[in-house]
Amino acid sequence: MPVATREWQLAARPHGEPTPEDFRLVELERPDPADGQIVVRMLAMSVDPYMRGRMNAGKSYAAAWEVGETMKGGAVGRVVASRSPAVAEGALVLADAAWRDVAVLDARHVRVLPELPGVPASYHLGVLGMPGLTAWVGLFRLAEFREGDTVFVSGAAGAVGSLVGQFARLNGAAAVFGSAGTPEKVRWLTDELGFTAAFDYHDGPVAQQLRTAAPDGIDVFFDNVGGEHLEAAIGAFREFGRGALCGAISGYNAVEAQPGPRNMFMMVTKKLSLRGFIVGDHADMRDDFIAKVTPLVTSGELVVRETVREGLDEAVPAFLDLLRGGNTGKMVVRLAD
Amino acid sequence: MPVATREWQLAARPHGEPTPEDFRLVELERPDPADGQIVVRMLAMSVDPYMRGRMNAGKSYAAAWEVGETMKGGAVGRVVASRSPAVAEGALVLADAAWRDVAVLDARHVRVLPELPGVPASYHLGVLGMPGLTAWVGLFRLAEFREGDTVFVSGAAGAVGSLVGQFARLNGAAAVFGSAGTPEKVRWLTDELGFTAAFDYHDGPVAQQLRTAAPDGIDVFFDNVGGEHLEAAIGAFREFGRGALCGAISGYNAVEAQPGPRNMFMMVTKKLSLRGFIVGDHADMRDDFIAKVTPLVTSGELVVRETVREGLDEAVPAFLDLLRGGNTGKMVVRLAD
Repeated sequence: MPVATREWQLAARPHGEPTPEDFRLVELERPDPADGQIVVRMLAMSVDPYMRGRMNAGKSYAAAWEVGETMKGGAVGRVVASRSPAVAEGALVLADAAWRDVAVLDARHVRVLPELPGVPASYHLGVLGMPGLTAWVGLFRLAEFREGDTVFVSGAAGAVGSLVGQFARLNGAAAVFGSAGTPEKVRWLTDELGFTAAFDYHDGPVAQQLRTAAPDGIDVFFDNVGGEHLEAAIGAFREFGRGALCGAISGYNAVEAQPGPRNMFMMVTKKLSLRGFIVGDHADMRDDFIAKVTPLVTSGELVVRETVREGLDEAVPAFLDLLRGGNTGKMVVRLAD
Repeated sequence: MPVATREWQLAARPHGEPTPEDFRLVELERPDPADGQIVVRMLAMSVDPYMRGRMNAGKSYAAAWEVGETMKGGAVGRVVASRSPAVAEGALVLADAAWRDVAVLDARHVRVLPELPGVPASYHLGVLGMPGLTAWVGLFRLAEFREGDTVFVSGAAGAVGSLVGQFARLNGAAAVFGSAGTPEKVRWLTDELGFTAAFDYHDGPVAQQLRTAAPDGIDVFFDNVGGEHLEAAIGAFREFGRGALCGAISGYNAVEAQPGPRNMFMMVTKKLSLRGFIVGDHADMRDDFIAKVTPLVTSGELVVRETVREGLDEAVPAFLDLLRGGNTGKMVVRLAD
C-alpha cells in the first residue's frame, strides 16, 4: 500500500529575497518501504538560514536543492513502520528528510534519538541538534574560547547565537555582548540569557554601539551576520582576537557583492584570526557536546526558546520570516504531536 | 671620550607617502659606554616595510618612532669596545639599533651572531634574520603548510615572499605561484627561485591572473600585499584554504580606509582561515628555523638575493624605494665592510 505524503518542492530559484511563489506544496504517493527502509511520521521540521544557500544553483556548502524536487532539511519523527532490524517501530529519529509530513527513508540515513523526559522532540533540531553543535564547535574549537575571554555574538537571539552567549557565560567568560534586531530580543538577551549587554543593530552603526557596550574590546567574535558586524568586530578586537565565522545572513539575499571590511590591515597589526566553518566537518565533537549539554537542558540551566509555527502549510512562511529575523531562538515547524 | 655618531632622526610624521623631508641626518656625540655597555660599528642596517607603521603616531604593531629621536631597526655590527663580560670586542652582533653608523648599546640588548664562512653579515638581517623567520613562521605555523599544498605568495620577490616560495617548494608543495611588480621580478621567480608560475600584478586584475595561473585553486596564501590580492586569494581558495597575513604594503601609505574583500562570505562556504601575525610572537620557532635554514644557505640550495645600497646617506632613499617595490629580495644598506 503506497504511503500518502504532502511535500514542499522548490518551484523556482529566487533572485534576491525568496517569495512564496518559489515553493509549492504537493500531495504524492510514495512506494511502500523496501527492505531496510522505514516510514517516519514527522513531528517537527527545521527551517535554518543555511537553506537559503540551497535554493541557489551550484554548491554553497550544502548541495543545491533541485527545482521540481522535494526540499530537505533536519526533522524529527516517529517510526510508524519498519522493515529494518536497526530501527524499531515507535523509535524517535532524526533525519535530513523534511519538508514533508511523512517520509519513506533508508534506516541507515536516520539517527535514533534518546527519549528525554520533559524535553520536546524539537529540541533535537535546536539546542541538542545542529544549531547547538554549531555554537559549541564555533566557540570552543574555531574561536578557541578560554575562561576570562570577552565575547561578542552577532545575531545573538537566534538559534545558534543564543546558545553561544550562554555557553560562554557558563564557561567563565569575562563578559558577553550580543546584537539583535528588535528591542524585545535585546531585552531577552540581557534579562533572561545573562548577556552582559546587548544592542539593536538598527539603533546606529554597529561599530559605535559595540564600542559603547565593550569599550575595552573583545577577544572572541562569533558571527552569524557578516557585513557591518564583521568590520565592527575586527575594529573591536584586542590583540590575538579570534573570530568564528558561522554565517553571514545579512548577505544571503544579496544579488550583488557586499562591501568587505575596510580594516583588514588590523588582522596583522592585532594578530587576529578569522575562521569560517561548517558544523558537518566537526562531527567528532558531537558525543562530548551531547554529554555536556543534555544535563544543562534537563536541569534548566540553559535557557532554551523556540519560535514554533504549526503545520506543514506554515513551513514556507516560517522560513521567509526566519530570513527576516522573525524568530527568537530556534524557528521550528511543528508537524504532529 | 665620547663616541661620534651619525644618526637618522624622524623629522616629521608623513601624511601618505613619506618624503625625504620627513627624515634628517644628524651628527652626535654619545657618552662613553658605561658598565655593561658596548660600542658597535654597524656593518649593515635593514629597511623593512613594517617601519612605515612606526612613522605614524600611536602603536601599529611596533611602537611608533618619536619625532626628533633617532630611528631604530635591525642592524648587524662589530663590537669595537666592550665593558661587558658577555660580549667580547670583535664579536658580530645583531641589534635593533640602527639607523646610525655607530651605537652605544646595553650588551643585553644585542645577540651575538655566529661567524659563518662565506655568508655575508647582512644575511642576518634577511634570510637568517627577521624576514626569514617571518616566512618560516607564517608558512608552517600560521598557514599550516603541508606537503602537497598549492601555495600563492603575494609580493613574492620581496625579502619574505622569496623565501616563502622556496620554503614551500623545498618542502613538497604541489605548486607555488607568486605575484610581483615588474617583469624582471616575475622572471626571477620562475627562472631562479623555482616558482611554478608568476605574474606582474600591473598586467591585469589579480583575481583573473591568479585564476589563469592556478585554475584548480590554492590551499595556502601568504600575503604581503593585502587589498586586491587578499580578495583574489579568498576567491581562489579551495575548501579549508589557509591564509597567513604578514603585511598589507598596498595600504601602508593610504590616508583613507581601503575597500575590503567583497567575498568574505566564502570564509564560511569554503571553511577558510585567515590569521594575521607578527614574527615577534613566535620567537620559540627561532632555534629550529636557524638549524634548518642555515645549511640551506651555506649549501646554496636556497637562492638568496639582496638589493644593497651603500652608505648611511642612502638609508632614506633605500627605504622610500622599498615602499615603492624597488627591491628584489632583501633591501639592505651597507654601512661598513
